[in-house]
Amino acid sequence: MSSDKRLNQQLDFLIEADKLKSTLRATSLCDGSRRENSGEHSWHIALYAMTLAEHSNRPIDVSRVISMLLIHDLVEIDAGDVPIHSDYDVAQQEATERAAADRIFGLLPDDQAGHFRAMWDEFEAAETDDAIFAKSIDRVQPVISNLETGGGTWNEFNVTADQLESRVGAKVCRGAPAVWKLLQSRINLWFA
Amino acid sequence: MSSDKRLNQQLDFLIEADKLKSTLRATSLCDGSRRENSGEHSWHIALYAMTLAEHSNRPIDVSRVISMLLIHDLVEIDAGDVPIHSDYDVAQQEATERAAADRIFGLLPDDQAGHFRAMWDEFEAAETDDAIFAKSIDRVQPVISNLETGGGTWNEFNVTADQLESRVGAKVCRGAPAVWKLLQSRINLWFA
Repeated sequence: MSSDKRLNQQLDFLIEADKLKSTLRATSLCDGSRRENSGEHSWHIALYAMTLAEHSNRPIDVSRVISMLLIHDLVEIDAGDVPIHSDYDVAQQEATERAAADRIFGLLPDDQAGHFRAMWDEFEAAETDDAIFAKSIDRVQPVISNLETGGGTWNEFNVTADQLESRVGAKVCRGAPAVWKLLQSRINLWFA
Repeated sequence: MSSDKRLNQQLDFLIEADKLKSTLRATSLCDGSRRENSGEHSWHIALYAMTLAEHSNRPIDVSRVISMLLIHDLVEIDAGDVPIHSDYDVAQQEATERAAADRIFGLLPDDQAGHFRAMWDEFEAAETDDAIFAKSIDRVQPVISNLETGGGTWNEFNVTADQLESRVGAKVCRGAPAVWKLLQSRINLWFA
């Protein structure tokens, strides 16, 4: 492959990725001014991972975690964001996201497409220590946003403290239990 | 320091960082629908670095480049974004950004504040190979956005092909000359 062809494929992928800035999430910015998009969310949780890496309960390669987090939401360009507290068809959503991964990573040169796809698959499977920590951190940021905005999506979806514990707490505890322990004290005050 | 105090400081920093999503840049999204903010821009250029690392003209540590890019614009929370093609007081802007770096990185525990600040200083100085490549990539993304939106900020600031070459091309060429060479062919078509 000529290097021009390779670079053109990479730029096509990066131009396509721009669309993630138009995928809206349920969570709001911390000042409540508007809903967050998946592009800026991806930046924020990469910064979360960089800042909170020391709280992982197992040894991790934080640069791999950050790379995973930078690409983990790209499938939402086609599949949209599904709020964790909403009702949805899990199997259908997973199939849509896999098709999106085929299309979007497929814009890259084959070797790079394979590398990015393998990282996305690893994140989704949440079995390696790096992926477990990445998933934990991805769950922390919306909790902070909800606490900063007077409940946020917890109000919208009528979430109980028990539901929050099972849907979010259990997942954060897999990779970053110390972070969840501190958040619990803030959450308990809010639900009291 | 208790680990709770340390984690609270880290969360305060991450909550403050959320404000970067409300700092607007001159550049638009590739679909022209609105101006880009500095949070989503930071995500996008980290993804640019991850995708285009092989085009660096010197050996780099891409994970360090990505970390630099994730924090490089945080000072804009206080200092705002200054479009490269606009008129501004360089010394005044640099002083404002240094004060912002003191305040924002100063929210973190001392050791981490020092580490993040050193990375920001390295990026700003643009002397190491990692910082040079990071700066090059930071200049590439707005060029793509302008090409995708019929000229974008080049129209707004009446930029000539020569100005673009000296203000942007020379900087991209320091770290990623192959990328600039390919962009030149697209830019020449646009200015023709």
